Amino acid sequence: MDRPKVTSHDVAERAGVSRATVSMVLNRSPGVSISQETRERVLLAAAALGYRPNSAARMLVRGDTETIGLVVTEPASLHVDGFVPQLLTGITRVNQRHGYGVLLEVVEPNRAPNAYVDLVRSHRIDGLIVLNPATHDPALHALIDDAYPLVILGSVGHPGEHSVNFSTRRAIRKAVDHLVDLGHRRIAHIGFSDVGYIATDVRLAAYQRSLADRGITPDPALVGFAHYSAESGHAAMAALLERADPAPTAVLAGNDTVALGVIAAINARGLAVPGDIAVIGFDDLPIAAYMRPSLTTIRNPGIEQGEKAAEMLIKMINREPVERPKLVVATELVIRESSGGART
Amino acid sequence: MDRPKVTSHDVAERAGVSRATVSMVLNRSPGVSISQETRERVLLAAAALGYRPNSAARMLVRGDTETIGLVVTEPASLHVDGFVPQLLTGITRVNQRHGYGVLLEVVEPNRAPNAYVDLVRSHRIDGLIVLNPATHDPALHALIDDAYPLVILGSVGHPGEHSVNFSTRRAIRKAVDHLVDLGHRRIAHIGFSDVGYIATDVRLAAYQRSLADRGITPDPALVGFAHYSAESGHAAMAALLERADPAPTAVLAGNDTVALGVIAAINARGLAVPGDIAVIGFDDLPIAAYMRPSLTTIRNPGIEQGEKAAEMLIKMINREPVERPKLVVATELVIRESSGGART
Repeated sequence: MDRPKVTSHDVAERAGVSRATVSMVLNRSPGVSISQETRERVLLAAAALGYRPNSAARMLVRGDTETIGLVVTEPASLHVDGFVPQLLTGITRVNQRHGYGVLLEVVEPNRAPNAYVDLVRSHRIDGLIVLNPATHDPALHALIDDAYPLVILGSVGHPGEHSVNFSTRRAIRKAVDHLVDLGHRRIAHIGFSDVGYIATDVRLAAYQRSLADRGITPDPALVGFAHYSAESGHAAMAALLERADPAPTAVLAGNDTVALGVIAAINARGLAVPGDIAVIGFDDLPIAAYMRPSLTTIRNPGIEQGEKAAEMLIKMINREPVERPKLVVATELVIRESSGGART
Repeated sequence: MDRPKVTSHDVAERAGVSRATVSMVLNRSPGVSISQETRERVLLAAAALGYRPNSAARMLVRGDTETIGLVVTEPASLHVDGFVPQLLTGITRVNQRHGYGVLLEVVEPNRAPNAYVDLVRSHRIDGLIVLNPATHDPALHALIDDAYPLVILGSVGHPGEHSVNFSTRRAIRKAVDHLVDLGHRRIAHIGFSDVGYIATDVRLAAYQRSLADRGITPDPALVGFAHYSAESGHAAMAALLERADPAPTAVLAGNDTVALGVIAAINARGLAVPGDIAVIGFDDLPIAAYMRPSLTTIRNPGIEQGEKAAEMLIKMINREPVERPKLVVATELVIRESSGGART
């Protein structure tokens, strides 16, 4: 089934030169003098035969690696929550369509800043996608300053950044409005991670502002922080129910997985969702519609965002123009049973 | 903060040779004759200065890429279920400890066989980890025959394979015994994928055998197949409840995410879990304990399996002995509310 592999020997024969010459031409061996005519003969022979040097050689010849780097800034975001896998799926789908590999780096938070730099310096990648970076990350800003091919899923607020983001403020506003319209005033928020990460900070600020816009003073006792997982959502909500007096009648969770734990914590106190406390998630993971109760949530299309980020990065690598370097993807509120305002 | 970067110019100066000579030595340029003495002088100078050629050059010099390939054989397994992300987490954790990158390839099922081969032939990786391959995959068997560094998560039953697997038969037996001991005889099984993939085939066979061992004749009407997701578990269980007469009193789901959909389908018919139908999952994902009802499931330690596979592969790449090339990781039955036999 396979065609016989073309070797540098075949190229040498066709070009009428030695194999060493072929190698020196294709590897651009420095300090070796080869006539322009010989060089062209070798390159034409290689092209005619469809000679494909191995990747290592090709990286030197073409100056690219056909690989992009993907940095996940928090291991928990990969193995306890379903959103990062959505992004990964979108990224790998587009990359494969374009013949790019994806070099995956999952970073422990305490060494995150250097991870980008190490990967870039290694010359193993042509560009980088970074997921939910820390708000302040000097290395990341420096790479953007250097015009390194880099796309952020999220935003670090750098004017020169290329990013794929979603309309958090509008999304959260819709969720808060939905709850206020249902009569809720004591609305809690459980962030999906500690503060200091963009997405968590932006969601918290949007929650506070959306409440204020409806004439509700945010109560700090109604804010808690989880760490991606259902377990951490359970713990954060249990603590919130201990300290909040009066108790909230609604909770906006930072992601759907945290919402699952929040619902379990509410149930564990003998309270019902949505009867006693309404719950809204964020992401609309594939499990959200099958939770009990089914989860009202903000649909945040992860696969699409991964695809857009990869498409943008590949354009940057190929020095093609990027029409919208700060792309914003739409979100929508999907109303199900857990908010007590079920339409379906 | 950074040390100044050592260049090939520094190496040339220290060795007392031209930069071209350094390059030819380090790139092993074929057909170029360099005396053994010069070669050694260059290599010693490079070592003394800690010269680090870029990865592309290093791949040629050292003949390795410091990268392993990871092939996920089904996109849905990444973005709708939480088990593959566990494996990824374990694999990336070990790889980073050893300085290896992970080149991720997510394969559409219809082109799975060639994906391994393309990646191996590209010379971009030193070895390969394959997740849940198809039962019959000639390309994979050929790579094992060739002693290519390859670890399978699962097993293809090749005598020479290196694999990390778990004791499916024992795990399923414990789950079936638990249900039979609770009085169930009509026990259904919803596979997490179509037949033809190892893990699904092995679970189905183990389910049938475990029933037979307890004197129960397996009923084909009680077997269905999902496709990784809660949605597909819901659809498969709804169809099963339509056709099975009498209805099952218990269901063994192929994974926890499918179990979530199975529970939703049971509830949608006005039946209760575990009151009317008991449900058991597989994997013990981080969400399993927070489902409603909390899920009885078979704990299948994904992070540990990913770690073991990566450790084994790195040993193979380094030509170190692998003590147990067919490693079997223990599983255990975790009894929660959904089987009605809750101990906690």
